Amino acid sequence: MKILLIGGHGTIGRRVAAAFADGHELITAGRSSGDVRVDLASEASIETMFQQLGTVDACICTAGTGHYGDFHAMRQADMMAGVAGKLFGQVNLVLIGQRYLTAGGSFTLTSGIAAEHPARNGACVAMLNGAVNSFVLAAAQELRHGQRINAVSPGLVEDSRERYGDRFPGYNLVPMPKLVNAYLLSVLGAVTGKVLKVYS
Amino acid sequence: MKILLIGGHGTIGRRVAAAFADGHELITAGRSSGDVRVDLASEASIETMFQQLGTVDACICTAGTGHYGDFHAMRQADMMAGVAGKLFGQVNLVLIGQRYLTAGGSFTLTSGIAAEHPARNGACVAMLNGAVNSFVLAAAQELRHGQRINAVSPGLVEDSRERYGDRFPGYNLVPMPKLVNAYLLSVLGAVTGKVLKVYS
Repeated sequence: MKILLIGGHGTIGRRVAAAFADGHELITAGRSSGDVRVDLASEASIETMFQQLGTVDACICTAGTGHYGDFHAMRQADMMAGVAGKLFGQVNLVLIGQRYLTAGGSFTLTSGIAAEHPARNGACVAMLNGAVNSFVLAAAQELRHGQRINAVSPGLVEDSRERYGDRFPGYNLVPMPKLVNAYLLSVLGAVTGKVLKVYS
Repeated sequence: MKILLIGGHGTIGRRVAAAFADGHELITAGRSSGDVRVDLASEASIETMFQQLGTVDACICTAGTGHYGDFHAMRQADMMAGVAGKLFGQVNLVLIGQRYLTAGGSFTLTSGIAAEHPARNGACVAMLNGAVNSFVLAAAQELRHGQRINAVSPGLVEDSRERYGDRFPGYNLVPMPKLVNAYLLSVLGAVTGKVLKVYS
């Protein structure tokens, strides 16, 4: 299977990359690393990436983050980078990428637990994740030729404990193999239109 | 109670306005109608509106729509008006309006059934509604001084049957009094952090 992974050098992406490294043609893409360069905030960059690659059997995105910060001081400007990257970056991967995805191929986007259980200071991320989840429900109904789409919604993952754990007191740690399984299920299984929640 | 209603001349808004007309000081706001003018797509316009009004006990928004159209032809540009209005318009009402809302006051935003049950051509609206719902969950945790926030999520409402019914085959019609009750519950009740679903 020819698999495109955007964000393959991130905390989650590198584990997903490892899981698909054997037996597949894995192509990683990222803003500053990977086999090909892509700026998720640019439709033109996404289009160029797909033109370079031709058709793919699966497109996985583990890239994109959102603003964390004091709700009472937050302004729209704080949220726009996340909207451009994590939200529209992933939406545009689907809108543009559907023409480059093989019949029966799959999109796997990444949202997050904040859509349902936001932490303090996480209103922006909650908003982005909720948007991605609902987009996936709709997109699954629209895709043709057996193309599928799911979102993986991770909780606080083990590998982020040192970096982000303080933001999420009381959140259970998600074992990385359990999270990776959700990506495997989405890419290699038959599910579509699902938000695959891996919260603990 | 001093109640600010944005979108009070729309399909839903006029019913909500009627429900709060007696016994309250109701102020309607809209882009081209209402007691005060506001452009939800502009933070400055929202700030100016609140400066004119001073504090309010409740802020209800029934304004904002999103793009409906062929998923396969949809581009980011098609979605930006909805993002600016229905999503950031409502988000900014809260971020800015929290300084003008009395202790114990409430925000009531409007999302929609598409967040969970999108119709064909409704991926943009699904995304916007999902974003609003998750934002409300997060915002409810952050607001101070007993301020509350909820989203009302309407299905296909009776009064929209002629205008939008063709877009939603198989969707049950929501009686207007039932929908209005959700706004009453949010404003006059004690609930917070809820998505009040009125789907049938």
